[in-house]
Amino acid sequence: MTTNTDDTTTPLVPVTVLGTGAMGSALARTFLDRGHAVTVWNRTESKAAPLLAAGAAWRPTPAEAAAASPLVVVCLLDQTAVDDVLAAVGGAIDRRVLVNLTSGSPAHARSAASRVTGWGGEYVDGGIMADPSDIGSDRARLSFSGSRTAYDTHEPTLRELGTAVYYGDDPGLAAVEFLAQVGAGYELLIGLLHTLRLVQTEGADVAAFAERFAQSLEDGYPQVVRAIGKAVRDGDYPPDLGPLSVQAPLMDDLVAHRRSLGVDDTRMTEVRELMNARVAAGHGDEGLAGVFELLRPEKGSAG
Amino acid sequence: MTTNTDDTTTPLVPVTVLGTGAMGSALARTFLDRGHAVTVWNRTESKAAPLLAAGAAWRPTPAEAAAASPLVVVCLLDQTAVDDVLAAVGGAIDRRVLVNLTSGSPAHARSAASRVTGWGGEYVDGGIMADPSDIGSDRARLSFSGSRTAYDTHEPTLRELGTAVYYGDDPGLAAVEFLAQVGAGYELLIGLLHTLRLVQTEGADVAAFAERFAQSLEDGYPQVVRAIGKAVRDGDYPPDLGPLSVQAPLMDDLVAHRRSLGVDDTRMTEVRELMNARVAAGHGDEGLAGVFELLRPEKGSAG
Repeated sequence: MTTNTDDTTTPLVPVTVLGTGAMGSALARTFLDRGHAVTVWNRTESKAAPLLAAGAAWRPTPAEAAAASPLVVVCLLDQTAVDDVLAAVGGAIDRRVLVNLTSGSPAHARSAASRVTGWGGEYVDGGIMADPSDIGSDRARLSFSGSRTAYDTHEPTLRELGTAVYYGDDPGLAAVEFLAQVGAGYELLIGLLHTLRLVQTEGADVAAFAERFAQSLEDGYPQVVRAIGKAVRDGDYPPDLGPLSVQAPLMDDLVAHRRSLGVDDTRMTEVRELMNARVAAGHGDEGLAGVFELLRPEKGSAG
Repeated sequence: MTTNTDDTTTPLVPVTVLGTGAMGSALARTFLDRGHAVTVWNRTESKAAPLLAAGAAWRPTPAEAAAASPLVVVCLLDQTAVDDVLAAVGGAIDRRVLVNLTSGSPAHARSAASRVTGWGGEYVDGGIMADPSDIGSDRARLSFSGSRTAYDTHEPTLRELGTAVYYGDDPGLAAVEFLAQVGAGYELLIGLLHTLRLVQTEGADVAAFAERFAQSLEDGYPQVVRAIGKAVRDGDYPPDLGPLSVQAPLMDDLVAHRRSLGVDDTRMTEVRELMNARVAAGHGDEGLAGVFELLRPEKGSAG
């Protein structure tokens, strides 16, 4: 091997951060800490003061701030704020990369991508699953989608914020991942809370139950969740938690018990009806995953 | 150390199994394999034939079968079948231990315990979370509650069936554990299936999403579940997934997204309303666990 000049450290990419609320400030602070030249803009200038004291540069408009760096990170309150700021940035994003980390819908990400590319920029959408205090550590999980070349170029910088995963060219995919992960999590946790009502009403120890359920989440459910994902992908539903013909009668007990206590039985009743419909349609030897076929929207009807 | 006579093996307890369906047969088979004298009874004698061929003894009535062993295990189709068999056993259970492994309600377990103790027997209720094929291995999880002395006496024998946990003197506690564990699991899994509809409708890979969600179940949620259990026990709700004032606006995005796709938003809408109510009541700085306070039945109203 020969010595070559590539051994020199790659210069750090200058970054602009548009929006210096709690999360935007955490992003800008991390970039400053890692040695980047950071430019910021915020609707209310006073919120940026701590960053300016720490070495960030201020620009009075989104367009001037965006023009200052090849990488422009947007982290605002909501989609409406993003739309307003994008309109103010306009052509200043030409030949720059805009990474939008504001929570929003997949449809909004696709629309924002279209506007940015129309102005000559490249668009990457992202979601953050973390508290601001976790930014800059592995505990922060970030999802990205959109322009692959832009992501590849700036991946080292984006990885400074946390654990980063890229989901594909469709700019909506990061938002899909975020909304799906968070939604599945709330499904789990609201279901747990209703179950804790059952446990408490029956005079058992809620914290001890939660401890045992947490153990089940570690030990048994990941395997079941993976199996259900594969079953749904393949449209082939082997008996996961046992055949539906055995699972379905058990749901009668779960529904009756919850009703006897006055505890919410919304999902148990739904699962029972779905299972009974699958059994009646001749799928009694298949698994729970097969009820997917009955969930709206039906296949192919997506709008 | 001195040699002593306790080194001799404890003689194996003779066991009666009432009910030789798929699960009852697996129980009896395991006891036979471990060397117990096993007596069986079943409403339909022919279903017991494989066990008789393997060395089990047959008795033509539940009372005669129960009288044959100090430990009587009951595993039938449902609570009604248990009631019928208990009536047929009656005083034959005097000075014996009846372990009921049939799925049923906590109230039924308490009622069955009362009948058995009235006849001079001791009652232990149990639940099985396993396929019949797992019985006899660590994969089978069994929960027990009821007479502590009876459980302690027969714990070595019951542990031959799988991993066993004893929940307390209240005979209903094993059924509570079973119904709560299974219910919380179905909450998780039906929530996942609705979320997979969202993922599929958005054109993303359902199996890859399930793989990542399984990873979250292993890495992050057990800690959250434990924290929620403690918060509910203590009635003190620190910000678990962040303060509710931050979580609540996010629910608007989740609800709007699911509605835009036609995907079920039952739980997301419920969680949003519960969060908004907590925030409106001045709990915006607390965590998700605090919505427990709003779930029916209200504290103290349990019937």
